[in-house]
Amino acid sequence: MAFSFPATMTTPLVIPSVDDLHDAALAERLQRAIDDKTKPLGALGRLEALMLRLGLILGTEAPTLQAPQMLVCAGDHGLAARGVSAYPSDVTWQMVENFLAGGAAVSVLARQHGVQLSVADCGVARAIAAREAAPGAPRLLQCRVAAGTQDASQGPAMDAAQCAQALVHGMAIVRGMPGNALLLGEMGIGNTSVASLLLARLGGVPLSECVGAGTGLDAAGIARKQAVLQQALEANNQAHEPLDALAALGGFEVATLAGAVLQAAAERRVIVVDGFITCAAVLVASRLQPHVLQRCVFSHRSGERGHGAMLGVLRAEPLLDLGLRLGEGSGAALAWPLLESACRVLREMASFASAGVSQQSA
Amino acid sequence: MAFSFPATMTTPLVIPSVDDLHDAALAERLQRAIDDKTKPLGALGRLEALMLRLGLILGTEAPTLQAPQMLVCAGDHGLAARGVSAYPSDVTWQMVENFLAGGAAVSVLARQHGVQLSVADCGVARAIAAREAAPGAPRLLQCRVAAGTQDASQGPAMDAAQCAQALVHGMAIVRGMPGNALLLGEMGIGNTSVASLLLARLGGVPLSECVGAGTGLDAAGIARKQAVLQQALEANNQAHEPLDALAALGGFEVATLAGAVLQAAAERRVIVVDGFITCAAVLVASRLQPHVLQRCVFSHRSGERGHGAMLGVLRAEPLLDLGLRLGEGSGAALAWPLLESACRVLREMASFASAGVSQQSA
Repeated sequence: MAFSFPATMTTPLVIPSVDDLHDAALAERLQRAIDDKTKPLGALGRLEALMLRLGLILGTEAPTLQAPQMLVCAGDHGLAARGVSAYPSDVTWQMVENFLAGGAAVSVLARQHGVQLSVADCGVARAIAAREAAPGAPRLLQCRVAAGTQDASQGPAMDAAQCAQALVHGMAIVRGMPGNALLLGEMGIGNTSVASLLLARLGGVPLSECVGAGTGLDAAGIARKQAVLQQALEANNQAHEPLDALAALGGFEVATLAGAVLQAAAERRVIVVDGFITCAAVLVASRLQPHVLQRCVFSHRSGERGHGAMLGVLRAEPLLDLGLRLGEGSGAALAWPLLESACRVLREMASFASAGVSQQSA
Repeated sequence: MAFSFPATMTTPLVIPSVDDLHDAALAERLQRAIDDKTKPLGALGRLEALMLRLGLILGTEAPTLQAPQMLVCAGDHGLAARGVSAYPSDVTWQMVENFLAGGAAVSVLARQHGVQLSVADCGVARAIAAREAAPGAPRLLQCRVAAGTQDASQGPAMDAAQCAQALVHGMAIVRGMPGNALLLGEMGIGNTSVASLLLARLGGVPLSECVGAGTGLDAAGIARKQAVLQQALEANNQAHEPLDALAALGGFEVATLAGAVLQAAAERRVIVVDGFITCAAVLVASRLQPHVLQRCVFSHRSGERGHGAMLGVLRAEPLLDLGLRLGEGSGAALAWPLLESACRVLREMASFASAGVSQQSA
């Protein structure tokens, strides 16, 4: 399926409402079902919390994950010209081509798990040529806002209309997707800087705790990056509301992801969050609609400095802790089988009564 | 396939030799292949160490896991009559029936991942009736040594001949298995006690650091359990060599697993270790053949007290940390897709050169 938005699109931005999933009766039925499984109480550890969450999101004691979609949003950043990354901006389009050709980590992992991979050009400096994809193969979504953002150290990265357009794109992409689970991924040289800025501004975390090595800066590089990001905060010192901060400090891929998260949450899809950058999109979305967080499963704690603080702000307990710092959605894809396991255990595991197993004697 | 050993079997015990996998040239080729993948250096974190390990075990830069086998060994323990568990011994055979019927956690997870499940009656108090299994369904292996061990708090749990027989059974089971990967699981009410005793005796860890809640003891129960285990150490205070300690303090399922581990290591299979009890089998095997550890992938850090110290003694860094404390092989099964991912990334992910992606500019 080819997918592209006209550049002149003017759909107005309407943030969808995301209701409170709280359902005490269902939560109690789920907890009882979990406790009745043939195992000691709580013996499946954090998988049990995952079972509860998936049951609540999908509104059933027998959840089934259907047609999972990995959405990798890509964009370039004016900030990259200021030397905040170990890699040149050209790597963004090169990696998009790699995703589509099936050679990147997320391509391999999505293929392994039967997850459909969609790669969105949200604003890569060098436009990605349209192409047809075979069924099941990675597909390109064209939803460019511009050829990369402006340099946020000199002023807003996007204007309000561009930011709104990227959000609308993200919502429209998810509306067009089948299934009930969305995995988040991203690519954009310079976008750990964007995540650091949004964490500092919206999360109130000191900038020094938000800035890390990204793709591989040394200590001097990190110090340079932090100085540039401090400039960006000062150059955008009026942007404190979520949408203002997103426009001023964000990237096209982060804004598109934030729109996708809002739409997925409104549709009650399971949202599988990857690392630092996709968390930044969730942070923005959750400041617009707090119940977004009820729909999120945090896949991993990354090796990037700042992700720990980010997870703390989001009150998130991720599933994996493997020192990953690749992005792309690779952590979300690696954790995906655990979500499948949680659903299968809920659906297929016997109860003490059905299996004729004795309960605890104490 | 029906599988049973004659009770009078007298195959002599011969510990297979397990050679050093060290191959500097292959390790260097693997590391170069990993570093050439289209990602920042080290960005796949601990998955990269796993890639290296799997490549070294299988002796190739393009490892493929084939016909994975989950071996769940079950046995009963004389110690259980001393109140060391929250559940009665009857639960052992009930759970074996549950494994075979497909309703236990490990049954569900093995089915999810296409892992063949074999359940061995190594010495369950109530014998499990033979049956035929449909292809791919859980199968029963009959290799009973006796109807449960003796009470180790009063003297040796097994005599030397019984212990040898269980080890020989484990070796024979693995020799008859297809594929190149063995996942370890276990069932036996009272067997966290066995693992605690072996860790204390062979690992030199103070008993109080080895004893935990098992399936769910409260603080008073744990204190009672520790007192009984202290008696067991004293009643067997001459048993310090690995095989002596295994016979004196072990269980039939742990000895069968130790034999399986030795055989799998000798055949250079990938060994996926589950939690505290399967680690105890690996501990014994590694004291007989230290290079066993080169073939092991430790799947998770469990919530059972003692497992942390056990992993320390084995110098193991497990993949998952989900607070699991179920045993059965459930942690090994949950981690299995990560091993598949590591192999696929090695085989299928593009290099910078093949994908035309720019390298780090710094």
